[in-house]
Amino acid sequence: MISTVLHKADFDSMETRYRTRFFNSLTGMKSANLIGTRDESGHTNLAIFSSAVHVGANPPLIGLIVRPQTVPRHTFQNILETGWFTVNHVTRTFYREAHRTSARYAEGESEFARCGLTEQYGELHPAPYVKESVVKLGLRHLEDHYIKTNGTILVIGQVLEIMVPEALIGPDGYVDIEAAGSLAVSGLDSYHLTERLERLPYAKADEEDPGA
Amino acid sequence: MISTVLHKADFDSMETRYRTRFFNSLTGMKSANLIGTRDESGHTNLAIFSSAVHVGANPPLIGLIVRPQTVPRHTFQNILETGWFTVNHVTRTFYREAHRTSARYAEGESEFARCGLTEQYGELHPAPYVKESVVKLGLRHLEDHYIKTNGTILVIGQVLEIMVPEALIGPDGYVDIEAAGSLAVSGLDSYHLTERLERLPYAKADEEDPGA
Repeated sequence: MISTVLHKADFDSMETRYRTRFFNSLTGMKSANLIGTRDESGHTNLAIFSSAVHVGANPPLIGLIVRPQTVPRHTFQNILETGWFTVNHVTRTFYREAHRTSARYAEGESEFARCGLTEQYGELHPAPYVKESVVKLGLRHLEDHYIKTNGTILVIGQVLEIMVPEALIGPDGYVDIEAAGSLAVSGLDSYHLTERLERLPYAKADEEDPGA
Repeated sequence: MISTVLHKADFDSMETRYRTRFFNSLTGMKSANLIGTRDESGHTNLAIFSSAVHVGANPPLIGLIVRPQTVPRHTFQNILETGWFTVNHVTRTFYREAHRTSARYAEGESEFARCGLTEQYGELHPAPYVKESVVKLGLRHLEDHYIKTNGTILVIGQVLEIMVPEALIGPDGYVDIEAAGSLAVSGLDSYHLTERLERLPYAKADEEDPGA
């Protein structure tokens, strides 16, 4: 395929929504997660995010990029109010419902009810899980980092509760999220199944090229 | 599948590498990117990352989580020295070579040579692209955010150069990275092809359930 080379002048001339779709495609395949929160009064909120990022394993930390001025703004407000949120993998069985959480519903309406998804609670914290999800994490809010260039926020949480089928956890700790049905997303709206090529061994400098 | 519920006491008792594999699996499917840099003397470095995250489209910003104390430490040093880095999608044709960049090579050895990948340069900046990659981004370093809880760093760069096949860019701006062969990764070492289910329309609150 013949490549084209684009620079700032090309980006600057893009129509706003075109540019948003374009740049959202360029980081590669992304996770598809529903973030569950509730406010102090108990109103629940659910929002789809493709920006969950692994920050560390000990303690287990996950980051989210939050745009305070756009649709999922309740997510960040609720995290500040109650200090907890959930991360729920989106799977093949409910990705259309999950995508619909990105619509702008009326104040006080929960995306759970509007999108046909079911609240589920653990014993540790008040944030709602998504019953339909297979891999679910409960996180306590720890840190925020304000990104000066565009006003987004990196929200960091510590994983303190996990709901996962034991059958998916391998003897070495790897969790088979493909078998869980967890999808990848590209751009703003494209949902993808995955098909494992292989797991590769830990790389060592003195090995011969395995492809040779 | 019957789920098990795990809490902090369960995580704390995990063996270190088991815990690392376990928590790296839990954020969902991740991007697979090679980050290309060089130091002031011109030595190149290439490191595989699954933590690239979309931070914004205008200006176009991408974040990376960097662990200063582990293998890809040169990446961050080089970004600080020269102010530039590249993000190159890992595809089916060279994922084994890409994975081998995670080995600890001797000081002064470039992962390009050791892993059988080819340096490519644009006219804008000194950071090396990966010739074998299909979607390649050149970024100028903008901001760092130190995560207090575990000492990792969120590095933010602004996309200023893009090499991408024009045939992959749709009329609405979406880039078909599946057609580019861009892989998803789960955990530390599992590489996945993707298979598009569908692109969904922009969600609106007044729509009927499309699945109904």
